[in-house]
Amino acid sequence: MKKNGKVFVIGIGPGDEAYRAPAATRALMKSDTIIGYKTYIELIEETLEGKEVIDSGMRKEVERCQLALTLAEEGKVVSLVSSGDPGIYGMAGALLQVKQQRQSDIEVEVIPGITAVSAAAALLGAPLMHDFAVISLSDLLTDWELIQKRVALAGEGDFVIALYNPKSKGRTIQIEETQKILLKYRSKETPVGIVKNGTRQGEVVIVTTLGEMLLHPIDMLTVVIIGNSHTTMMNDVMITPRGYGI
Amino acid sequence: MKKNGKVFVIGIGPGDEAYRAPAATRALMKSDTIIGYKTYIELIEETLEGKEVIDSGMRKEVERCQLALTLAEEGKVVSLVSSGDPGIYGMAGALLQVKQQRQSDIEVEVIPGITAVSAAAALLGAPLMHDFAVISLSDLLTDWELIQKRVALAGEGDFVIALYNPKSKGRTIQIEETQKILLKYRSKETPVGIVKNGTRQGEVVIVTTLGEMLLHPIDMLTVVIIGNSHTTMMNDVMITPRGYGI
Repeated sequence: MKKNGKVFVIGIGPGDEAYRAPAATRALMKSDTIIGYKTYIELIEETLEGKEVIDSGMRKEVERCQLALTLAEEGKVVSLVSSGDPGIYGMAGALLQVKQQRQSDIEVEVIPGITAVSAAAALLGAPLMHDFAVISLSDLLTDWELIQKRVALAGEGDFVIALYNPKSKGRTIQIEETQKILLKYRSKETPVGIVKNGTRQGEVVIVTTLGEMLLHPIDMLTVVIIGNSHTTMMNDVMITPRGYGI
Repeated sequence: MKKNGKVFVIGIGPGDEAYRAPAATRALMKSDTIIGYKTYIELIEETLEGKEVIDSGMRKEVERCQLALTLAEEGKVVSLVSSGDPGIYGMAGALLQVKQQRQSDIEVEVIPGITAVSAAAALLGAPLMHDFAVISLSDLLTDWELIQKRVALAGEGDFVIALYNPKSKGRTIQIEETQKILLKYRSKETPVGIVKNGTRQGEVVIVTTLGEMLLHPIDMLTVVIIGNSHTTMMNDVMITPRGYGI
């Protein structure tokens, strides 16, 4: 009987090793094969010695999952790598969907990580201290109508809003529309934080306002945090107060 | 001139050391004094040797922050400890609010952690793969009217919903009202995951439905994740599919 392998779905956190869970590092060490998008693989180079490494481009999620399960069926321990938390717009869902479709009984362990919005918030101050909504502006896999509706409802509910995948080379309208929608509910002075490559090489932290946010560079490696009606910006520190009577 | 200290606001993650960022552990090691709620202090006992440890009860947030800043002004390195991520319903906001009020120039570093919903999601499968809203049901510091409005808007927007602080001994109505509101927007068969003490001693993971969620134990140490209209539960694995055409 063939030995069964295992698939770890790993979140490597926002970038710096200091923010990567020991469980993730240990799973990488235990793995025979590591599969992931090239940019993320480069962040964990120090743990790759002696491993089979399969890097691949974006938009190959399903192929990566199929490969991980096939290798595990051959007896290998495989790590499928996401940045941040694999459970938040990462690889956990695709892998489990593919596993169900294949009716595979391979053991899968999801190892959570610090997601991009937590790292961004820490660099900005404390913008997430109140209820918040996390919305991806990528319409590759979601109808743009639904995304717009969610932005409007989050605006109406005075949620702090964290935008993932706010803008790519081929997708620039969505962040403009999002700004327009939110200006119906919030003042143009509402504090906004823009964090690119939080805790890793090329880190950029910008504090601005809802009215001026589009004057700053925003791309796929950026998280945008839009404050609620109580969020303040003082000395470049963004805080959504929770009302301790301070 | 007196040497100035520093305050680290630390997230120790969901519990197990395997999910705690090395940056958090290193900051604890560097600290002279560690301040936090008793339950969390117990989770990091192995790093406390030789440190001054000040534990305190709940609802003493502001006092803890004042003390941390006072000790730092005396030249000490102080760690203020939250579970999960200090930026999500943790101590980062209160500390920065108090710092501003005191016009203190003490250096503050927020160290993000894996928040409870990430740990819960990993144990349940992949429920957060789509846009989601994070809502605290504690009405100590937020009007209950506003919380209800947010629950309804999140329901209307088909957000996956993560509930923090869903229920305490003195606060039992909120989770019942939340269920009632969401049943206006979602079927009673909607998958729900209930995770208590995720990744730490006493871990309980329950998969149920929106209709039956109140039959299970829920308390302050529990995170409740309510699926959206596409979330599935198969072999006790909760997945919100992202539509890869699988």
